Amino acid sequence: MINVNEALKVILNVVKQLESEKIPLIKGLGRVLSEDIHAGSDIPGFDNSAMDGYAVRFSDTINASKPKPKTLEVICDIKAGDEPKASLKENQAARIMTGAIIPKGSDSVIMVEDTEKVKSQKAKGKNREFVEIFKETKPGENVRRKGEDIKKGELVIPGGKELSSAHIGILASLGMSRVNVCRRPRVAILATGDEVIEIDEELTPGKLRNSNTYTLYSQVLKCGAIPKNLGIAKDKPQELEKKIREGLDCDIILTSGGVSVGDYDLVKYILAKMGTNIKFWQVAMRPGKPLVFGTIKNKLIFGLPGNPVSSMISFEVFVRPAILHMMGQIHDERKEIDAVLEEGITKKKGLRYFLRAYTHWKNGVYLTRTTGPQGSAILKSMAAANSLIILPEEEEKIEKGVRVTVRFLD
Amino acid sequence: MINVNEALKVILNVVKQLESEKIPLIKGLGRVLSEDIHAGSDIPGFDNSAMDGYAVRFSDTINASKPKPKTLEVICDIKAGDEPKASLKENQAARIMTGAIIPKGSDSVIMVEDTEKVKSQKAKGKNREFVEIFKETKPGENVRRKGEDIKKGELVIPGGKELSSAHIGILASLGMSRVNVCRRPRVAILATGDEVIEIDEELTPGKLRNSNTYTLYSQVLKCGAIPKNLGIAKDKPQELEKKIREGLDCDIILTSGGVSVGDYDLVKYILAKMGTNIKFWQVAMRPGKPLVFGTIKNKLIFGLPGNPVSSMISFEVFVRPAILHMMGQIHDERKEIDAVLEEGITKKKGLRYFLRAYTHWKNGVYLTRTTGPQGSAILKSMAAANSLIILPEEEEKIEKGVRVTVRFLD
Repeated sequence: MINVNEALKVILNVVKQLESEKIPLIKGLGRVLSEDIHAGSDIPGFDNSAMDGYAVRFSDTINASKPKPKTLEVICDIKAGDEPKASLKENQAARIMTGAIIPKGSDSVIMVEDTEKVKSQKAKGKNREFVEIFKETKPGENVRRKGEDIKKGELVIPGGKELSSAHIGILASLGMSRVNVCRRPRVAILATGDEVIEIDEELTPGKLRNSNTYTLYSQVLKCGAIPKNLGIAKDKPQELEKKIREGLDCDIILTSGGVSVGDYDLVKYILAKMGTNIKFWQVAMRPGKPLVFGTIKNKLIFGLPGNPVSSMISFEVFVRPAILHMMGQIHDERKEIDAVLEEGITKKKGLRYFLRAYTHWKNGVYLTRTTGPQGSAILKSMAAANSLIILPEEEEKIEKGVRVTVRFLD
Repeated sequence: MINVNEALKVILNVVKQLESEKIPLIKGLGRVLSEDIHAGSDIPGFDNSAMDGYAVRFSDTINASKPKPKTLEVICDIKAGDEPKASLKENQAARIMTGAIIPKGSDSVIMVEDTEKVKSQKAKGKNREFVEIFKETKPGENVRRKGEDIKKGELVIPGGKELSSAHIGILASLGMSRVNVCRRPRVAILATGDEVIEIDEELTPGKLRNSNTYTLYSQVLKCGAIPKNLGIAKDKPQELEKKIREGLDCDIILTSGGVSVGDYDLVKYILAKMGTNIKFWQVAMRPGKPLVFGTIKNKLIFGLPGNPVSSMISFEVFVRPAILHMMGQIHDERKEIDAVLEEGITKKKGLRYFLRAYTHWKNGVYLTRTTGPQGSAILKSMAAANSLIILPEEEEKIEKGVRVTVRFLD
């Protein structure tokens, strides 16, 4: 039986990053860049004002104060978006709006709150406008320098990053209306078993409704991949093979059920018959031990366990990293922290445990506790969990109060 | 000037939860339940086997061991999905698969690994099959009881919960192929300013590309709401009013720019002219001070600041909670923790600060540091941040090594 780390290594060794595609930036959220982005221009593109106020020359404001203001002539008005023609000379100022180009001759901006308009004076037949300055500026004060945020040619976002809202904003400000991202993998989902019925069918004795397709479909969506629902295959070799073949137009095929030791567990048998290169079967973990992984025609096939929680946790531990790697996401942001265990736990040696847990921050530490019975069919404790407690293979008894590794779920 | 807490209270006081709609369960991920869900049936619906093995009577296995096995007659074979007809009598067993109904007369299941088939014996003209049992069972061992996970009538998921993959699985197992969720709010987004151009237009002096629409669009999507892009309005009263009116078919209108103290900041003026009930203008925070909030015809209008980071942070602090409340999400899961500050910070008294930060877990504590210059136009430090350091109004100087509040971003 292979352990979790080895199993993950086997999977990631056969995963290939998918080809890239060009998409409109507006659809970029959550997609993974397939190339490094270097800035095509400076941002900001010009020295501009960080404030509404007056562009001035620092030297004209020396020693200015409220009781002893300096009076400057306002020679023009510069709005954001304007290209100022004037150049400031001694004792001149320009009224300027946030984001507007700093006029030639000025080196700083004084905010409007530190000034007062003087009644305009008529001189030589025209209106002259003046402003009183109450404070000395510093050279460069309230001026945003060209290239201050981003310099032309700079590496702005490395390939392999999942695009956040802020990344999208940066790409917009650089004028990149289309971006190259990795294609999203398509993931086929097949539930198996004579006992499994569609959720709107009538429930008769011995049957259970197909919840696995629904959880897996949602988990695939949450990863940013594209699910394809293949429905349910009964435990009949021909039906199973036919359904699995319907998934071969996808990048990954997930089956659930039919991979344990029972004689009616057909999935393994059919996968082998179809020529699947089976890489491993059974992983030393709980829940999720009966997992088959293999490849067929460059597609990945995961034969997930049939129990609802086992299927979800196998997805989280093995399928999700495979999907992220296919999408080119080299930085997996899933957070692992350690937390103080609020209860004692005993476990079977040799298996890695993934316990459904609620983990919360209290007085500067994380506390964690299981969310109830951990039977691998019990979805309720999975729904109540915000995290998984991960207990290593070699442990048998973990005392209350000990720090354990916790991985947050979505 | 209103403070952050008061401003948020004003906003949430006028927010109303949107009406609910019935959607297919398969589209439920991330939607918010608008009703409590009580279980319509027990899960599991019948006592069933947790293992592949043999259903037995505990009393027949007493003192069984590998050297001294008990031999039982296998009277039938129960697959998952079967309805067993037979009832076990003394010294009888039934071969049983995981998930199959426990037959009458049996009280426990022994896993297949603790048994061995005995060569079948011909007796009275028919084949009789036997199995050796190597271990004593306990009553109830490896039996999943009817209703063990969920009892009929039990409150399974309370209204107001955002549906996770596990919730979707539970609803599927209860046969709920459609669910009532809150409608997703529609959010109109309008960029304003003479200096703002579309991202694929040619950049001329004084102009800057419209990044705010792209960040806001992505932030709206990330919250689960539906964005509507109204484009850019120049600083012309008629144009601005016309564009804002185009957003009145939405639940929320976001404008960016045009809300500071400058004479060209038209948004406030136009909103007032259109009859907006303006609730506040300017919040004691940095970045994000120039924020206008009001209502018009039962729609919420947020006049966000024009600087890219100010606009993003105002969204995070005020618009996101409004959207979540509209969607009925009463449990906001945004995580706030405290972290050890890796640098000293000085700030202006009276304003709450939201600093872009990188926070990581190291040796049992969170460490946090700012991601570079905090100018409100500098998106680069926002893109590098995974969190915001939140510094309270009353502070002026925070020393390195002190614990500060940190909120994680998506």
